[in-house]
Amino acid sequence: MSPIDKLSALFEKFPGIGPRQARRFVQYLLVAAPALRGEIAEAVRSLGAQTAQCKKCYRWFPTEDSASTASTCAVCANTARERTLLFVVEKDADIDNVERSGYKGLYFVLGGIIPLASEEPEKHIRLRELLKRVEADKPVEIILGLSATTEGDHTRQILAEKLQKSTSKVSSLGRGLSTGSELEYADPDTIAQALGNRH
Amino acid sequence: MSPIDKLSALFEKFPGIGPRQARRFVQYLLVAAPALRGEIAEAVRSLGAQTAQCKKCYRWFPTEDSASTASTCAVCANTARERTLLFVVEKDADIDNVERSGYKGLYFVLGGIIPLASEEPEKHIRLRELLKRVEADKPVEIILGLSATTEGDHTRQILAEKLQKSTSKVSSLGRGLSTGSELEYADPDTIAQALGNRH
Amino acid sequence: MSPIDKLSALFEKFPGIGPRQARRFVQYLLVAAPALRGEIAEAVRSLGAQTAQCKKCYRWFPTEDSASTASTCAVCANTARERTLLFVVEKDADIDNVERSGYKGLYFVLGGIIPLASEEPEKHIRLRELLKRVEADKPVEIILGLSATTEGDHTRQILAEKLQKSTSKVSSLGRGLSTGSELEYADPDTIAQALGNRH
Amino acid sequence: MSPIDKLSALFEKFPGIGPRQARRFVQYLLVAAPALRGEIAEAVRSLGAQTAQCKKCYRWFPTEDSASTASTCAVCANTARERTLLFVVEKDADIDNVERSGYKGLYFVLGGIIPLASEEPEKHIRLRELLKRVEADKPVEIILGLSATTEGDHTRQILAEKLQKSTSKVSSLGRGLSTGSELEYADPDTIAQALGNRH
Repeated sequence: MSPIDKLSALFEKFPGIGPRQARRFVQYLLVAAPALRGEIAEAVRSLGAQTAQCKKCYRWFPTEDSASTASTCAVCANTARERTLLFVVEKDADIDNVERSGYKGLYFVLGGIIPLASEEPEKHIRLRELLKRVEADKPVEIILGLSATTEGDHTRQILAEKLQKSTSKVSSLGRGLSTGSELEYADPDTIAQALGNRH
Repeated sequence: MSPIDKLSALFEKFPGIGPRQARRFVQYLLVAAPALRGEIAEAVRSLGAQTAQCKKCYRWFPTEDSASTASTCAVCANTARERTLLFVVEKDADIDNVERSGYKGLYFVLGGIIPLASEEPEKHIRLRELLKRVEADKPVEIILGLSATTEGDHTRQILAEKLQKSTSKVSSLGRGLSTGSELEYADPDTIAQALGNRH
Repeated sequence: MSPIDKLSALFEKFPGIGPRQARRFVQYLLVAAPALRGEIAEAVRSLGAQTAQCKKCYRWFPTEDSASTASTCAVCANTARERTLLFVVEKDADIDNVERSGYKGLYFVLGGIIPLASEEPEKHIRLRELLKRVEADKPVEIILGLSATTEGDHTRQILAEKLQKSTSKVSSLGRGLSTGSELEYADPDTIAQALGNRH
Repeated sequence: MSPIDKLSALFEKFPGIGPRQARRFVQYLLVAAPALRGEIAEAVRSLGAQTAQCKKCYRWFPTEDSASTASTCAVCANTARERTLLFVVEKDADIDNVERSGYKGLYFVLGGIIPLASEEPEKHIRLRELLKRVEADKPVEIILGLSATTEGDHTRQILAEKLQKSTSKVSSLGRGLSTGSELEYADPDTIAQALGNRH
């Protein structure tokens, strides 16, 4: 395989990228200065060396030079965060979004979601690690921040069961009309949820 | 103006219809059998004669031949509905959608929404009629079923104030993740609402 | 069926209209003034009486009161048009679009397109009428203005055969890059056509 | 800047990639095996070493190990191609698309397009190189394969002037209905072109 085809094939595995756009990426790099290519190559290669997975929440974070021995991310290390709240999410990208909402507690990244048909939930998410974290830290409240999808609901139910024995209160995100949505176009299930959660 | 242009102009006022689609409607009617045109014309003309506005909820409903003197719609006339609940909506189409969610109470149609800049809320919605209905029926709970938009929020606030003196409990629809939405793509305000309404 | 459901069902047959939008049309009419409903009903009903199908090109056109005996449309009646050119189109709406391009000749509306599987082309288009028109008027050139689709190509081929015996030159619209399109995103067939038609 | 932010910023410069997708790429790489990251880094870095710009058409091509001294791409080196035809394109990606159309001649990549406001066309495209190529090879026909956009038309006009003195015939791609387009939705300029190029 030519280096052009090989790099195209690698880009095709990137999330949301098809053959045509993968090829455009390669064209972009072909025309780019060798220095830029070197910079990108170095950034990709050293991503592992300069980042680490947080020992507490399991998200990936940049290891600062000055504190290269750090084993926890900035949020987990921040003593000003509300340590009684644990927000459980599916993946790293969810955290970025939740941070924008003004949430001030801690996180735990499941690293996946449990498929409906799965017999072994442990294979898809960090269940053991979550139970260990809960046992060690004893948060007052665990917020199950799963997506409002069928698989998200399924994962939430299994987690709720598994966490039943913990001393933490287990809560779920509110369901209802999302900001900007109109009643006329809301689906019946969302309206039913919005009615059930009226206040 | 030619009859073709005139009918096009009338169709252009239909919700969501632009000049091109209005013209396609006219083409469709031109090619259609005269009998179909007659049927449509008759259905449009007699819409008023065969429908009436409900004296209680103000929605439009078909008047049955057998009970042509009926002044209330099927929902308002149905004694099996929960008469302690009053769901206040912006427009008739909202009711169709709320019915699909399994709601079993009564309704009131505001007939509009209050623009942010308006000095006279009464000009845009049936405020006087709502207050009269509440005073007469004294529902245990009034659910303000406005859309989750800026104007919807604005209208809800004004209604909440105006209904303060009533003996009814005034509630709002729950806000949060709508069914099917993913945490990663939810907007920060929706996440903040979902967090605030966690349970 | 209620008058609301009945009118909804009629609107659902309009081109491009689904159940939800059909219902919104009815709501719009319900809330509208009875006078507007009457105006629409009258415009729909009288569409047939105030329009006629052109005896030459078969398009639908408004019959002017003063000249209610007119049997040809404004274009066919206009002696300033180039009468040596005959532009054959599938449907009335195509003419509106071709007029905007500055074309100054005459038209003929086929009233349809020939499906690939059809054994009887005459059932789908005004073939006999076209041949008669060509024989009578003997245009110098017949432009087959079909869409650049598989069915359009199929219809063009059949028409070209049927018109072989006429004394008119039979031509087709140029194929190639449409205005605004980029080479990178053009499909191979369009590029092949653009290459074949280079000048 | 953290390595995560740095790599995100580099991905944001990729064609068609916004901040959110750039971040997803980084997440994908963070979770990926270090070996895959190494493979991508190596492929990006070595792209320059394993590819070269063709001395004849200026496209980028993979240099085969066996013939590492090759200075022309596979098409330019292929003696079976029609060497009398020169297809001038804006960028490498256009060639992939033209190849799919069955074209069998040679190419020249301009490396850009001339902006409408530009005073110095030479700054944007390989004009000197094109003139030199034409003088050396004396193709029978030069096909100006620019996009059907305003800038493409502008570039074509300037090239046509500059090539006037050459002995080659200078042609342009055919304009008209692109494959699959319908007459009803074609823009007036495309119809005018299709009419002008009828055959």
